[in-house]
Formats: sequence, structure tokens, C-alpha cells
Amino acid sequence: MSKSSWKEECGVFGIWGHPEASRMAYLGIYALQHRGQESCGITTLHRGSHFFHKGLGRVADVFTEYELDALKGTAAIGHNRYSTEGGNHLPNAQPLFAEIPSGPISMAHNGNIVNAPELRNELIQEGSIFQGTNDSECILHLLAKQRSRDIVENLKVSLKRLVGAYSLTILTDNKLVGVRDPMGFRPLALGKLDKAYVLASETCAFDLIGAKYIRDIEPGEIVWIDDSGVHSDKALGSTKTAQCIFEYVYFSRPDSYVFGKSVYGVRKRLGQTLALEHPTEADIVVPVPDSGLPAALGYSQQSQIPFEYGIIRNHYVGRTFIEPKSSIRNFGVKVKLNPQSAVLKDKRVIVIDDSLVRGTTSKKIIGLIRQAGAKEVHLRIAAPPTVGPCYYGVDTPTRSELIASSNSIAQIEKFVEADSLRYLSIEGLKKAAEDTGGYCRACFDNEYPTPLFNKQKG
Amino acid sequence: MSKSSWKEECGVFGIWGHPEASRMAYLGIYALQHRGQESCGITTLHRGSHFFHKGLGRVADVFTEYELDALKGTAAIGHNRYSTEGGNHLPNAQPLFAEIPSGPISMAHNGNIVNAPELRNELIQEGSIFQGTNDSECILHLLAKQRSRDIVENLKVSLKRLVGAYSLTILTDNKLVGVRDPMGFRPLALGKLDKAYVLASETCAFDLIGAKYIRDIEPGEIVWIDDSGVHSDKALGSTKTAQCIFEYVYFSRPDSYVFGKSVYGVRKRLGQTLALEHPTEADIVVPVPDSGLPAALGYSQQSQIPFEYGIIRNHYVGRTFIEPKSSIRNFGVKVKLNPQSAVLKDKRVIVIDDSLVRGTTSKKIIGLIRQAGAKEVHLRIAAPPTVGPCYYGVDTPTRSELIASSNSIAQIEKFVEADSLRYLSIEGLKKAAEDTGGYCRACFDNEYPTPLFNKQKG
Amino acid sequence: MSKSSWKEECGVFGIWGHPEASRMAYLGIYALQHRGQESCGITTLHRGSHFFHKGLGRVADVFTEYELDALKGTAAIGHNRYSTEGGNHLPNAQPLFAEIPSGPISMAHNGNIVNAPELRNELIQEGSIFQGTNDSECILHLLAKQRSRDIVENLKVSLKRLVGAYSLTILTDNKLVGVRDPMGFRPLALGKLDKAYVLASETCAFDLIGAKYIRDIEPGEIVWIDDSGVHSDKALGSTKTAQCIFEYVYFSRPDSYVFGKSVYGVRKRLGQTLALEHPTEADIVVPVPDSGLPAALGYSQQSQIPFEYGIIRNHYVGRTFIEPKSSIRNFGVKVKLNPQSAVLKDKRVIVIDDSLVRGTTSKKIIGLIRQAGAKEVHLRIAAPPTVGPCYYGVDTPTRSELIASSNSIAQIEKFVEADSLRYLSIEGLKKAAEDTGGYCRACFDNEYPTPLFNKQKG
Amino acid sequence: MSKSSWKEECGVFGIWGHPEASRMAYLGIYALQHRGQESCGITTLHRGSHFFHKGLGRVADVFTEYELDALKGTAAIGHNRYSTEGGNHLPNAQPLFAEIPSGPISMAHNGNIVNAPELRNELIQEGSIFQGTNDSECILHLLAKQRSRDIVENLKVSLKRLVGAYSLTILTDNKLVGVRDPMGFRPLALGKLDKAYVLASETCAFDLIGAKYIRDIEPGEIVWIDDSGVHSDKALGSTKTAQCIFEYVYFSRPDSYVFGKSVYGVRKRLGQTLALEHPTEADIVVPVPDSGLPAALGYSQQSQIPFEYGIIRNHYVGRTFIEPKSSIRNFGVKVKLNPQSAVLKDKRVIVIDDSLVRGTTSKKIIGLIRQAGAKEVHLRIAAPPTVGPCYYGVDTPTRSELIASSNSIAQIEKFVEADSLRYLSIEGLKKAAEDTGGYCRACFDNEYPTPLFNKQKG
Repeated sequence: MSKSSWKEECGVFGIWGHPEASRMAYLGIYALQHRGQESCGITTLHRGSHFFHKGLGRVADVFTEYELDALKGTAAIGHNRYSTEGGNHLPNAQPLFAEIPSGPISMAHNGNIVNAPELRNELIQEGSIFQGTNDSECILHLLAKQRSRDIVENLKVSLKRLVGAYSLTILTDNKLVGVRDPMGFRPLALGKLDKAYVLASETCAFDLIGAKYIRDIEPGEIVWIDDSGVHSDKALGSTKTAQCIFEYVYFSRPDSYVFGKSVYGVRKRLGQTLALEHPTEADIVVPVPDSGLPAALGYSQQSQIPFEYGIIRNHYVGRTFIEPKSSIRNFGVKVKLNPQSAVLKDKRVIVIDDSLVRGTTSKKIIGLIRQAGAKEVHLRIAAPPTVGPCYYGVDTPTRSELIASSNSIAQIEKFVEADSLRYLSIEGLKKAAEDTGGYCRACFDNEYPTPLFNKQKG
Repeated sequence: MSKSSWKEECGVFGIWGHPEASRMAYLGIYALQHRGQESCGITTLHRGSHFFHKGLGRVADVFTEYELDALKGTAAIGHNRYSTEGGNHLPNAQPLFAEIPSGPISMAHNGNIVNAPELRNELIQEGSIFQGTNDSECILHLLAKQRSRDIVENLKVSLKRLVGAYSLTILTDNKLVGVRDPMGFRPLALGKLDKAYVLASETCAFDLIGAKYIRDIEPGEIVWIDDSGVHSDKALGSTKTAQCIFEYVYFSRPDSYVFGKSVYGVRKRLGQTLALEHPTEADIVVPVPDSGLPAALGYSQQSQIPFEYGIIRNHYVGRTFIEPKSSIRNFGVKVKLNPQSAVLKDKRVIVIDDSLVRGTTSKKIIGLIRQAGAKEVHLRIAAPPTVGPCYYGVDTPTRSELIASSNSIAQIEKFVEADSLRYLSIEGLKKAAEDTGGYCRACFDNEYPTPLFNKQKG
Repeated sequence: MSKSSWKEECGVFGIWGHPEASRMAYLGIYALQHRGQESCGITTLHRGSHFFHKGLGRVADVFTEYELDALKGTAAIGHNRYSTEGGNHLPNAQPLFAEIPSGPISMAHNGNIVNAPELRNELIQEGSIFQGTNDSECILHLLAKQRSRDIVENLKVSLKRLVGAYSLTILTDNKLVGVRDPMGFRPLALGKLDKAYVLASETCAFDLIGAKYIRDIEPGEIVWIDDSGVHSDKALGSTKTAQCIFEYVYFSRPDSYVFGKSVYGVRKRLGQTLALEHPTEADIVVPVPDSGLPAALGYSQQSQIPFEYGIIRNHYVGRTFIEPKSSIRNFGVKVKLNPQSAVLKDKRVIVIDDSLVRGTTSKKIIGLIRQAGAKEVHLRIAAPPTVGPCYYGVDTPTRSELIASSNSIAQIEKFVEADSLRYLSIEGLKKAAEDTGGYCRACFDNEYPTPLFNKQKG
Repeated sequence: MSKSSWKEECGVFGIWGHPEASRMAYLGIYALQHRGQESCGITTLHRGSHFFHKGLGRVADVFTEYELDALKGTAAIGHNRYSTEGGNHLPNAQPLFAEIPSGPISMAHNGNIVNAPELRNELIQEGSIFQGTNDSECILHLLAKQRSRDIVENLKVSLKRLVGAYSLTILTDNKLVGVRDPMGFRPLALGKLDKAYVLASETCAFDLIGAKYIRDIEPGEIVWIDDSGVHSDKALGSTKTAQCIFEYVYFSRPDSYVFGKSVYGVRKRLGQTLALEHPTEADIVVPVPDSGLPAALGYSQQSQIPFEYGIIRNHYVGRTFIEPKSSIRNFGVKVKLNPQSAVLKDKRVIVIDDSLVRGTTSKKIIGLIRQAGAKEVHLRIAAPPTVGPCYYGVDTPTRSELIASSNSIAQIEKFVEADSLRYLSIEGLKKAAEDTGGYCRACFDNEYPTPLFNKQKG
């Protein structure tokens, strides 16, 4: 929770062959709401035409029964957006739509194209027009230049031009397509619901609609679904994968399977490993809710130090809030989190958070815990220091805003006013995530798996 | 008012060199609200970038102070849309925006491109992608294929490809452009406000902001305005003009000058001419408010039969209305119009309306007038019978829905249950509009001034 | 239109014995919307219980199908409110409801109780509690103190305590009651719709729902309607009546019958009489729309000077409007009214308005007419000078704000910058309204028909 | 969470002597939002007058900066309402306001007056009018009948007439009053914020604004605060207290102190005691989030069976939700709660919930847990069976809807399809709550501490 700016990214969904496709897509992106709250949209296919509705805000606010009923058809794709590139206005909301030589096409994209500015420039010079500012529009333009009627062939040619992260769900006039980039940065899973097939960023979307998880789309795989079933092509290739390890640390819902593993299970192991790496004498283990819960539980089970809800989260806090004019200390944090003296008073407290970005929120939380009477406050982070920004679809602060990129752990410890601060090691992270290679950990180790073009590396 | 479906079209606006450009554009499209209520938008230019806000609904509902303040810059264009081609969803709202090789471009369009489907198809085959469904997007694609940095040069080449109606206001990164198609179907006027220049579909927009009407943009003229003043190029050419005579009959606000003439003046002459053509013995002349008012006044002055407000319009009627479940006769009309027996009882009444489209509304009005006690009801239409749909930017019923396309005047007279029905003649229309050629009267005479491609003519 | 502050008051409605009572009440107060736009409400009677919905704003905004369906029952009353006494917040919206010894009661009130402050004080001392701030609450408290089960008996006792104006529609658990105070300040009419009976402030409400006007409720009459029909009691008495003549001048809709006469007819006679009293040499007669239309027509017909729509009203102007930051001269008026030079240029113009309150709006209109090129501007007011505030249910400026209370006509003429200014005489007003006594003209002659208690008279 | 109908009640707040009184009241009722989400309101005192704003919905939706700024003054009271008696419409929203002989008075009430119908009837017979339907209005009427100018004296006389539950915050023109009924059913605490004094239902409201908890208002105590400080009167008396033990079980926020004890602490002891009473062989302890969390943690710590988040709650679920048309099994529960197979598969599971009302939700949860692969499901309820409805301010199902009122534990076990079901004993409840008498446990033991008048007991 202490995240002040490592924001969610996007969620994608797709379904083929269901009589209530628009409602299933609605539920799918409802379950993926944590991946993006800025805008959302659904496109359906009905008798060869695409119908869509998009809006700024959350799924529950953007869609009414009326709109879902108007979205006719038995196939649909959906999207939740957190703006990564491009401001938050409606033209950037997805799914995107275009009429191209192969017919109508709608697309939902999770990820970020690293060479989008270069491609965009090139495409504009060739006469393509860009109506929005997001990087996903490039993909449509590349597809529009292909001459085949076969969308899969066109995708194989077009996607080779891209460097970066893309998990896509695509709707044409006769099929649903799911794609993961060759490195597989972002997740994409395949499920089945009665006779319908479903695609979703996380399996929690399957759970809500009662679909069964079949398998992940593989890095570099194009899967297409039509009335004859599921088909696959791996011609995009995949020599080296780079699955985002931060999905485990923070993004995904704990009840999802991501990259084939239970997020909750990984998160608990992060806490257990942290306890093994940094045994600490204390009276209680307290999570920063909600993101720190599983790691704190793992830490407590490993260390045998009792787990306590020392900080209570107010779940009635909405998106808007009127602040008092005079200052109340640490107000922004207090609205959501209330450290309770009944638990904390005179205790030596281990506080577990999932990550530490700028340090300002952690500093406030520690201040409130001390105000509540804690004797000692030991901050333990269930991940390594975040030292590099993400260029693969996550909205992160710039490098200079990441406190760990330019401060030692001792300096950060001093800044957040903890009695001690310890992070999980990279080795610990790999162990907990069962990462024997094939993951992107660039935000922790600055090892970017792709060229960055003119993105600043330092 | 009896129009059940000869709907408004669009309004465009532009301003260059004003410190409150977004607010002036807001006022401009506010004054042009009658030309389209489905959506509206404003784009401004600030330091080489375009800022825009668009929304479904009326100007007063779409814009707040907050949004106008965010639309920085000293130049702006604005648009009111009534959906002619393309459904009513936000991607079709204008101004359209694109990044093209010559830089950012925003465009507002009033009119309709007759050969848009053909162009669209051709452009798609060449790799252009269409994100909306309206015909205006073609123009941006044609521009995007030009290689010059000079927007005027690019326009000269691109617009030659178009057949149909287009009055455009365009904003680039260094100028405001106004264009009228070579036939000049739709109006576009140039004005001056202090040191700023202004473009608008009708002069009533100038009146509200205190601008002075200078002249009309001529058919086939491209005008561009930058910090060095107003420039003109007539290379598009114009051999035959076809200005829309229906602007006088119904569309434009009576207080506007359109095609250089006072709309109110023309409308009064329509009524006067009608009185000359069809002298009728009666006690009172009653307009159908509000559209029939000037013609009724002209009719009364010519015939010396007293003008009376026999039908009162309820101006509090909003866009939504809940009907009773059980039927009330002629309810839809009664909500807006109340024929009053205090005026009508035992009278021989001449009712003046501006046009007659399907006949159903006229039938209801005549029924209500009889219920109010009128002895005779003579319906006089201040225009000829409408026999053909419009393909130049007006949303009209199909030919088969136009009652006059397949019924004689006697048959219509019977259908609407009038004691007599008379229309203005085409000659009378030309006389009243001082039309000595150069006008499009296709909706009255089926003489379409351009090829119609695969549009049904019959 | 030039009214800057002689505001509407309230409208009341009632219906008994109709299967769609809530929808009929909705339509009734929709038709009476001009009498109050600040709040509105409907109460229905179903199986002995009252159901209500009230809200701030206009009828079309406050009610949805959902709410009308929830308002079950075959009897209903409705109310439009313009705040006369008491601020504009929801607790003051009507109908008011109370449980009193005789059962549930709901009441809608048009008018103002002059001795309300005194009554309120007395009632509070006796233990009554006031939850709102409007004067109507007094009536409920007086009724609550009566011991009879018969509401009519209780009304006869309670209403004797009141001094002032009240047209009431009341719903109990077994009847609908209509009351007019003994002086009959405000109108109230009785109508019939199939087997149902209807009460309304103006007959335009009958027209919309297809009801037939039967007669007015008489001053001092209590009418009650139950399943056995219509009953009447005149025990309140009425020695001297004081019907509000301003209903003719401005408040009522022209298509209503009020106090038994056509409002439109009276208004035209006001203009005719004005022409007789003040013959003026001029080229055209121009109304200030919409309120000056009938009088201007009367003036034109009497004087034989041509009537012209020299000022066009923009009917798309909504309730909210964003002004430019820099000043535009006479902006507030220009948004609504556009004087057109095509009509006014080089003309000697007679401008007709229904009344003149503060003079500021008239001054602006005259300025705009001159800007449009008029050679002379002669302002003619179709009523006498307004010199006194109203205490009987109309929201008027204070005496000191009424320009005519402290300025001579010559001074006002100079202030509004007219070439000449003339008012209708009080004798002319009486003649046009066929007023042979029995009307309240206090705003014109300061002859208040009741004691004013501590209201300032001067 | 499994509560399908043991709803929250109300929250009250008050502050005296703070420059931002309205904002502090806003924050106070924001923190108390869990006690009522149907409506809310704030009243302030400024120069002897009361200003208020009330609305349907949540605090964050009802109030804007604009409204808080309009609520001037340095004293305020606030209210959150969950409708106990009286439907959910605005006239029932609190604070209530009245002008009474002692001056203006506003009041916020948490609780329920058992003899309200009798009092209401009596008051109506005496001429009082009831404009809303809630029981709180009685208190204002009783006060209005008192003749003293001293509100405390008037309260002492009036409140003696009441039987039932009332924690009140009251604002007059010169003081803030806090009252708890003689049995002290509902909580009310006193705090201090700089020089201001604060009253609130729960101490979590103090935490948010940075106020310090001083003490509880005692049962039967009237406290009044004015510029000279805090004063107290205990003349209402209190021989037997009956503090609501359900505040510990479910209502209050875990981070509050209620009746002087930490709610979180009591809740953990409920779980510990449950583990001692019903030791069960199992692999994991799983809470029903969020209400079962502390008890599950207590159960796990006592039993040494590992605690696991086997059910994940979706915190993005809003108030509205569109369901699919075809049925999805257990859909209503699945939207909020997702039992995860990664944790549950092949496990013997102890599920902890805070209470069991109708049984239908528990049955669905158990079904989902089994679907997720659990081998055994043992439901443990951290409270005794709920057998009686509440008449003291809690919205409960009727007796017949309470499954435990007419079914044995064995029958309920079978209904919810648990492998076993066990409840905490009443003795266990008393022990965990440190209840040595002085608590109301009527919902568990049918021992109602007051007469119930004509309320059904059986």
C-alpha cells in the first residue's frame, strides 16, 4: 500500500462463443479493475460489425445495463487502462478500433512498445495519421499496411517491428486473437467457460465468471480462436523470456495464477525468505495493508513472531476526499490507514511492506506507528530496492525519484526514521519466485532485457 | 417546428489571435447550437500543441470553467455536430485531430462528402486506418499523404479528390484555415473582433462575441490566418455554385446573414410570396412556432389578414419527457404546442409552417386546432414540396418517407385533414430568396448538382 | 423578458380518481413550470398512505419513470416552487406532509401568508416545532391543533387565522381539497378528465392532459372531492376580492384562462390600450421576446405600425452559462436576445415590454438596438410603473430597488437612454383587464388590500 | 462479511470550538461511514443560526468543498444514517432541525426509541405534527413542549419519557450537548483536539482528526460544552446498564475503543475462546474477510493451526453491479469473495466468521470453498447463535428469518453443508468481552433489558 507511484498498468480480456459476451467481458474487466482505473472499454462482434463503449473511470461507473445490452454479439474484448504513455483522455481509452484492408479490427493492449516514438515518426512520414497519443496505435498502423486477408499472417509480419511488451487481445470479423510478445513481459492466460474460450491477463477473471484456467499463452505465441476451436502459431519466436517479476511483488491480485504460479504463494515465500535473510528480534509482525499482508504472514510463520493487524485500513475511502485546510500531520496516510495503539503500544514492531518507492509514505506510516506508542519500528521490505524505472508497461517514477537509486540503505533507514530497514536480496527474490532465469528484474538490477532506444537509462 | 426529421446539420467556428480563444470558441458554438446538439468540441493551439475537449450533448453541458481554462492558447476551432453520417458516439465528435507529416492538425467540418465511401475504401486499401465512422476522417488521411510542409498546398491537392459539401475550419501549429467547397453548399463567414479574426457558419456567432462581419468565404476559396493577417487562395476553383437554399427555409437562425442575405428577410418574403401565390379568405394567420413565425408575419402583412399567436409554444420543454402510459391524443405535439381556443374558436385559420416532411406532425397540429374550435384550417407551407433527400450534410428522411415524393398535394391535404393545403412554388422560392441561379434546390426539384455515386436517387 | 427580478411564484395541482395520478400530476406541474423552477414535488395517496418525491430543480430533472412508478395511487397533488419566503433548500420543497390527529395530510401552497411570522412565533410558544423556514408550515400546525376528524371543518377554523394569499391543494387519506383565500389573490381552477377531477393554478395544465376546464374555485371557497364527487363550502366568506392583476401582466402563460379570462386576450388589449394612450410616430413595433409579444401585437394592430421580430431570442440558452473573463458589453442580455440590424437599421423603433422593474435590462436592450442601427428608440411599457413590492406570493425587489418608486418617468427615460418612455395608465390597465374592482393592483398603486403587519410599507 | 442483513445502525459526531468545524465534522462522519451509508448530514452553528446540508448516500458523495465552505461556524454536529425505523428518504436524514421556544436546535441520534409509536400517537393527539417517519422526531417534540430556556433542564424532563436507546449529539444556539440513555446501549465518547472538544460514536473518528480520547459519556449522563468548557449532569440516572455487545461482535471498527475496550482486542479473544471451546483438527484457519479477520487470527494463535488468506476479497466492488442474465452459481458472493484453490486444495479448513444470520451466505461460501478443492470445511462462528431481533437501533431480520431462532445447530450445519458447525457459547462471549454484567445480549439470549411495548417478542 505504501506505493506512492508504482502504479498498475493495464488489463485485457477476450471471449469467443458466449451468448452473453458483453456481460462476461464486463465481469472480466471488473475482476481486473486493480490493473487500471483510469478508463475502460468493451468491444463486441455482431454480424461482422464491431460495437463498442468506452469511458473514463471504473467499470462499474462506465457501464450500465443499457450499454451492455447494446453491445450485441457472442464475442468480445475488454480493457482496463492505467495511462502509461499518453494522457488520460478518452481517445486513448481502449479497445482501439480501425477499419483496415483485412476488415474491422479492435485491439486491447497491456504493455508498452519501447520503440513506439521511432515507429510513430516513421509511420507519420509514410502518411499514417495518429489520432491519439498512445503507443498502441502503432500496431494498428503496421497491420493496416499488410496486404493479406489473414490477420495472423499480418500480425506475424507487423509484430516483428516492435520492441517491447505487448499482451494483446484482438477481435476481427471472424476470430478472437491473443498474443504475447516474444519475451512474455506481461501475462495472458487461456480459459474455457462451457463452450466458450476466454483470454485474460490474470486468472482471477476466470474465477469470477466460472471459467476454467487451461494454460498461459506462451511468450511469442499467437493464439486464435474461431468457431472451429483454438489454434496456435509460434512463428514470432522466443529465444529469451523476460516475465515481469513485479507482477508477483505488487501488481497481480493474490488470488491469481500468473506465469503459472500462485501469486499468493510467491508473496508468502517472499516474506518467509525475508525472515530467513533478516532475522529480527521483535514482539509482533504488522503488515501494511493490503499489499503487505501475504508477505507479513509468511514472515510471521517463518519467524514465529506473532502476526497482528496493527494498522487498520478504512475500506470506505473513495476516490475523492476533501482535506482540512489546516494541516493534520500525515493526513493523506491517516485517511486510509489507522495504526492502533491497542496493538502497538510498547511493542517492538516489524512492519512489512511489499516495496519502497519514494520513501515518503513509509516515513509517514512509521511516524504514525510511533505516535501509537511502538517502542521500536523495524521496516522490512519484501523485495529488493527499486533502482530503475520500467519501460515495459508500468507507470513508475523517474530514476531520480526512486529513493534507492541514489541512496544507501542506511540513508533510507535514516530518512524513513526506522530503527532498522532491511530489504530482500535479489537472490531471495529469485528463490521465492522460483526464478531460474526468464524473468525481467530490471527495476531491481537495471538489467533491461531490450534496447531502450532514446529512453534514459541513467 | 413541424419538422419531424429534417434535422440540423453542423456548425463550425474558428478564431485566431484572441487572449480568450477557448471562451470565444465556446460562445461561438453556443450561438450555433441550433445547428447540432448531439456533440460538440473545441481545440486550441498553445505553444505548437493542440488541446481539446469534446463531449456528447450541448455546449452548456459539455464545457465547464475548468475545461475552458485548461484549453490554453490564443487560437481555437469549435464544432457542433448533428450526426449526418456515422452514429452518435464520441469518436465521431469533432474537431478531429491527427499528427501528420506537416505537424499537428485539427479540423471541424460542416457538410457531407458524397464520395466518402469510395475514398474510404481506397484509403483503407492503401493502409490508412479509420478509427471513426464519419466521412470527415477521409480529409485527414488525404492530407496525411501529402509531402509538403505547407498545409495550404496540401489542401489544394487533397480537396480536389472530394465531391460534395465541406465548409472547414482547420487549426495547424501556426495558422487557422477556413475552406468552402467549390460549390459553396454550406455557409462560412469571416469576421473581426478587435485584432482577432473569426470564422463561423453563421453571423449570429459574431453578434454574441461582438465581432464584426467582414465577408463570406467564397465557394472554392481557402483562407488562412496567421500573425501576419488574412490570406486567400482560390485555386480550388468554382465554376458553378450550389448554395443550400434550405438554410433560408429552416436551418439558419433568423438573425444570421447567410450567403450575404438576412435569413429573417428571406423568410418573411417566403411568406409574402406565398400570400401572393395563394390568396385565401380567412380570419387569422397563425404560425407554427417557432420556425413558421417570420413567414407567417410576411403572409399576414401581404394579405392583411391579422396575425395571431393561436399556438403557444412551451419553452420549458426539455430534451427528456416522460409520457403517460395510457394514450393522450396528439400528446407528443401537445407537450410543446398548445393551440388556444381563446384565439381559434369559430375562426377560419390559415396555419403557416416552414415545410412539411412526413405530414404526421402537421396532421396532429391541425387536429388540435380543430379541437380548439377552429371552423376552417388552411395549411400553407412557405416552401415547395420536399421530394428528395439531401446528400450534402443534412440529415433527412429517405425518399420514401417524404410524403410529397409519392403523393399529390390533394392526397397530402386529405392525409393531414386540412380544409386546404398549398405550397410555395419553386419560382416563388427563387424569387423570395433572390435566387438567380447558384443555389442547390435538390430537395425540392431533385436536381442534384454533383454525381451521387451509389447513393440511391429514387 | 426584461424582468430582472419580478419572479414567478408557485404552481399547484391536484387530481382525484385517475389510474395514472402520478403521471398526470407530473404533466400538470410540467405545464406549470413557468410558475417556479427552484423545486418541485408530487405526493400520491395509495391505500390510506401518502407517497412523495421532491427535489431541487425542474420537473424534467427531478422525476424519472422509476419515481413516477413508485408514486402509486389514484389521487395526487403537485407543486412547483419559486422561493418566496425561506431559502431554496429541500426541506422547503412542497408538498409538505404531516401526520395530524385527523390522519395524514399533504399540502401544496401558492401564495404568501402575511402574518406568518406572528403565527409562527405564537405556535412555537405553544410547543409546535418548525423544521423548515417557509410560511406554509403554519397552516399544518394550525390544522394539527383541531380536534375534528373532518378536514373541512378543521380548515374552516384554521384558515380564519391567516391573513394573506393562499391557493391550496390538499390531500388527506380520503379526499382532495382545493382552497382559495377569501380575497382570491392567486388563481385556482377546477377541471374534469374523464371521471377524474383536476385542480390547477392555470388552465394550461388542463390542456396538456386533455382535461376540460369547468370553473374557477371562488375566493373563500373550499372544494373537496372524494369518490362521491365534488362538494363545496363557502363558510370562509369573501366580502372583498383582490385577484392579482400581475397574473395578466406577466406571470401566467398566455394560453391559460385565469380568473375566467384569456391571458393572451388581456395582454393584447394591454398593447392596444397602450397604443391608444400613447400614439407614436415610428416605422416598426418590436416586442421584447417572449413576454412582450402579445402586447406588441396588440399595439401594432391598433396603431397600424408594422410588427417586426427585431429582437431574436436564443431558445437554446440554458440555466448555466460561462461568461468570458474580459467584458463584452451588455453580455448578459446578448446571450438571450439578439437585436438584428437587418430589421432595425435606420428605423424609428417602438419597443414593447410587459413591465419595467429596475431599468437595467431595458437600458441594455436599448443600447443593443441602437448598436444595430436604429434611428430612434421609443420604449413602451404595457403596464403602469411598478412602485410597490408584493407581499402576496411574488418574489419582488424591495421598494428601493424599484426604479419607478423613486424616479419620475422622465428620469427613467433618461436612465434607460430611450428617445421616449411611456407607460400604460392604471385606468388603461383596468380597462384592458376588464377590472371593475376586485383586483389587487398594489404593485402599481400601493393600495394593499390587507394589513401588512410589520412589513415595511415605504 | 457473511452478514446478509445484520446491518449497521448510525453514527453521531459533534465538535465545539474549532475554526474548521464543518471539515472536522466531515472527517468525523467519514471515519464513521461503516455505521451507516444510506444518508448523512452536517449542521453548523454560526452567529446563532444553524446551517445544514444533508443528502442520500455516502459522505464523500454528499459533500463537496462548496458545501463545507457554506457550513460556517466553529461548532458542528454530524450524522451517518442506516435506516432503522422509517424509509430511506431525505426527510429522515439527520441532523434534524427545529425552532423551539428555547431557540434553534439540531440533533443527531444513534439508537432506537422503543416506545416511539406510543409517544408519537400521544403527541399527534396533542397537536404536534410529524413530517418524517423516524422515531427521533419525538424527542424534538418533547423538547418543544418544555418552557425553560435551559436545554439541559428541558432534556432532563423530556428524556424521562423515552424507553430505549439514544446516544445524541445536540447543537443549540450556544452549546453542544452529548447524551447517552440510562442503559447506555450505544457508545459515545468525548475527545479533545487542541482547544476544541469532540463527541463521537467511536474513537476511530478521533484518530483521523488527531483528537485525543478523554473518556466515554456515561450511561444516563448529559454533557454540555460551551465556551466555558465541559459540564456534566447525571440526573437522568442509571441503575442498570445494557451496553450493546454486538458492537464488539460486528458493528464497530476494529481500531476503535468502545465502552472503554479495544474492539480488536475483544474480537481476537472471541476467536481464542472459540478455539478453546471447540478444538478442531484441521490444516488451516481461514477468515471470511473482512469481518472475520481478528477472530480468525485469535483462533489460529490459540490453536496453533496456521492462519491463511484462503478467501480473497475484491475491494474494488462498488455499490452497484450488473449481473449476468444467465445464472452463475453463488454469483453474489463471488463478486466480493474469491476462495483460492492455491491455498484450499486438499486441505481441512476451519472457516471463521463473526456471526451467522440467515445462513444463505455461509452456505454459498462453503460451496465455493469446496469447489476450490477443500477436503473438509468446518465453520466456526465467533459468537453465539443469533436468536432475537434488536429493538435498540440495529436493523435486523425478523425473528423468523434468523435461522438459529428455529433450527438446531445440527440443522443449520446441514443447511450450510459444513462438515461441522460450532458457535461460541454465551459464557465464552462474556469472557471474551470481559462482560461481568451491564451488557445487552438480547440478540443472543432473548433477555431484553426494557419493556418492548407492542413489539413482537416471539
